[in-house]
Amino acid sequence: MIDGNWFYGMRIPSHRKLANQFNVNRVTIIKSIELLESEGFIYTKKGSGTYINDYLNADYILNKWSEMMDWSFRIRNQYTVQLINKIETDSTYIHISKGELGKDLIPHLELKNAMTNVSNYIGDLSFGYNNGYGYTKLRELIAERLKVDGINITKDNVLITSGALHAIQLLVTGFLSQNTIIFSNTPSYIDSTHVFDYLNMKKVKISYNKLSDFQKIINKQPSNKEKALYVEPSFNNPTGQSISEKIREDMVNYSRVHNMPIIEDDIYIDIWFDEKPARSIKSLDTNNNVIHISSFSKSIAPAIRIGWAIASEKVIEQLADIRMQIDYGSSILSQMVVYELLKNGDYDRHVTKLRNVLKEKRDYMLNILNANFSEIAQWEIPEGGFFIWVNFNENINVKKLFSELIDKEKILINPGFIYGSEKNTIRLSYAFESRENIKYALEKIYQYAMYKM
Amino acid sequence: MIDGNWFYGMRIPSHRKLANQFNVNRVTIIKSIELLESEGFIYTKKGSGTYINDYLNADYILNKWSEMMDWSFRIRNQYTVQLINKIETDSTYIHISKGELGKDLIPHLELKNAMTNVSNYIGDLSFGYNNGYGYTKLRELIAERLKVDGINITKDNVLITSGALHAIQLLVTGFLSQNTIIFSNTPSYIDSTHVFDYLNMKKVKISYNKLSDFQKIINKQPSNKEKALYVEPSFNNPTGQSISEKIREDMVNYSRVHNMPIIEDDIYIDIWFDEKPARSIKSLDTNNNVIHISSFSKSIAPAIRIGWAIASEKVIEQLADIRMQIDYGSSILSQMVVYELLKNGDYDRHVTKLRNVLKEKRDYMLNILNANFSEIAQWEIPEGGFFIWVNFNENINVKKLFSELIDKEKILINPGFIYGSEKNTIRLSYAFESRENIKYALEKIYQYAMYKM
Repeated sequence: MIDGNWFYGMRIPSHRKLANQFNVNRVTIIKSIELLESEGFIYTKKGSGTYINDYLNADYILNKWSEMMDWSFRIRNQYTVQLINKIETDSTYIHISKGELGKDLIPHLELKNAMTNVSNYIGDLSFGYNNGYGYTKLRELIAERLKVDGINITKDNVLITSGALHAIQLLVTGFLSQNTIIFSNTPSYIDSTHVFDYLNMKKVKISYNKLSDFQKIINKQPSNKEKALYVEPSFNNPTGQSISEKIREDMVNYSRVHNMPIIEDDIYIDIWFDEKPARSIKSLDTNNNVIHISSFSKSIAPAIRIGWAIASEKVIEQLADIRMQIDYGSSILSQMVVYELLKNGDYDRHVTKLRNVLKEKRDYMLNILNANFSEIAQWEIPEGGFFIWVNFNENINVKKLFSELIDKEKILINPGFIYGSEKNTIRLSYAFESRENIKYALEKIYQYAMYKM
Repeated sequence: MIDGNWFYGMRIPSHRKLANQFNVNRVTIIKSIELLESEGFIYTKKGSGTYINDYLNADYILNKWSEMMDWSFRIRNQYTVQLINKIETDSTYIHISKGELGKDLIPHLELKNAMTNVSNYIGDLSFGYNNGYGYTKLRELIAERLKVDGINITKDNVLITSGALHAIQLLVTGFLSQNTIIFSNTPSYIDSTHVFDYLNMKKVKISYNKLSDFQKIINKQPSNKEKALYVEPSFNNPTGQSISEKIREDMVNYSRVHNMPIIEDDIYIDIWFDEKPARSIKSLDTNNNVIHISSFSKSIAPAIRIGWAIASEKVIEQLADIRMQIDYGSSILSQMVVYELLKNGDYDRHVTKLRNVLKEKRDYMLNILNANFSEIAQWEIPEGGFFIWVNFNENINVKKLFSELIDKEKILINPGFIYGSEKNTIRLSYAFESRENIKYALEKIYQYAMYKM
């Protein structure tokens, strides 16, 4: 059953479809699936379906946990995501999909200066366990900066986290009910994680651009269940697209009427090119229904591990209490370094330059795509963020493309299916690689798409 | 029903006992409890009992979460722990129980030098998302250092965490089955947290010093449940006591025979006075049954947020994968700074000095206790760590002492009941306050214990 069309992380078709496809009865299919599962080739995700494992590495799966206890309610990353995570740390690959700034775009000098400043007053610090909220001065400064964007808050509405995913993680374990139905757009970065696959939580796909459908979909869900909306309003990962101010307003109105919280993940908010994105959903919120999440991972560096959550004081107080039970807060050194970068103006100067460079690199990538790919794929122009979302024609096997580029060219592309995309898509990034490598990788992608598979 | 003997965090007696005590029937008791619960004075913890809330602050409880959704399966900290966490950030108090180094014992100069060193090669770093395991050089160095203690590992057995509690947290969510029975000694720091109060996990108290009882207690538990042992072998928080090498060996043997994992939390391992503690349990382990956890929070500074877990490669690989789903690892800056401190010898020089200073401060505190407290309390001499565990005579109301010292003297003592102690105990720390403040606080404690309550 396993041939070149079955791929790690892929969900296998229904028993009925397989029975038709292989022209056997359903019982044979069910038995075959059981056999494959027992051999570690496939695995079943409760309430979701049966998926293909990393069969190249099946003996690993056979042995997993034989030595000790079963693992808990956490689900492992998708095998393709694990594979990508692993290859992402290998610098001998070309990372043409990578969701982080290239080394040349990291503000090294500014970070160095910030560290020097911090080290000059390090002697005044008690360096103790904090209160779970984070470094007070950084919280004050973030509150002040968000006021400019119309989010009227104080430091008591700010919790420092170890990045945006960590903020979502805290919300899931510390705030959302375990029976919550989460509505979110697909494709989405969040679909490549298991952050909402918790206990009885359920994810339901909606489309931002059809709010009338959205209402119908929500109405179909049991009325006694808690509901929450997860939104990436600006320069969505992986599509690069944003939602309009009108839709943002509709969401806030809808959330007010139905008392439904919104988790606004605005991690790319500072990475705009020609104009700022529409007002943040949080700035339109008058009922404390919106929890606003962002991070410095995309604008400074992921390794700094500093993000934040903005919410009502009570929610923040709750999250800070949870934080004291999990890890006693984020590293004070990182928090102080980020504070220095913000305070002395280096952050704003850096981001201004960064926008220009990224816009130029976007155009560079778009030019190559326009010149070579227009007959085999479609894409839209991102107005910010890191990504161009490329939708190939049906005759190109994206899963095979992904695999061949890894095996034969040491080029890593992120296939769209890890983000829940059912189309023939890949995510390209202009943020990480040099122009030379972008050009080289796109040439290879074109060659494989056209001739080599 | 609420009088001076009912205290935040206290578990209320059974319905039957209360019915006897107040000479009413059980239905009246049940109705009264329901009323108190609806008013927010008490709360019920599933499978554990009914507890007293912070009734001084009951309107807070009445309002909690009225604005948004219920919170998830996370349990809030005990109210007394929340109160302590809050007061701990108030520097106008005397913190005579605090589990961290005083400002004068933090290696500020060494941290400053380490930051300068790091900032000198910061330009070479990619600052990207890491692989969840942590900074490779730090993992290598920790592995190398642990070899000296007989723990024969490589970097592949090391996961960097944001402190020891965070490591336990990762084990609970990423490794232990949700039906695990955790055996642990009481009193213990871990009883002041909810880290093992997860889903169907169950904590069972054992006594380290009676391993024959231990076996009986374990045998009483259902044989089909997963079991794990949590141990703080050296200078236990809060008692300051250690377990002998013989008991450590017995534990390893027991764990091997019964295939029961041991979580060894050895956070005070470096804070010994006259001689090193007995060999770590991990160093006696030949079957990869022991997961060894420690941190630099007690020997450098908590705000650094760097700890580690040592385990088999497969367990570490699993935890790293979970880490990529939670927060993408710890701050690289903190990891690099700790690496520099270790590498250049500053850490070892600092810890050598620290041991001498802490031993002198321990003796200073013991001298005051010997001179004034011997008729009203008992204690043992800690051979390392931060704490002296004081057991007052029955006639002294420790809960009231805690409360009066906060309200009238701005002195914070940690009462033993937050650590699960059923005796009349408090935890004293010689690590945080100056000699002057230690003397002053002990005088006040004595006055209140003898005359003022």
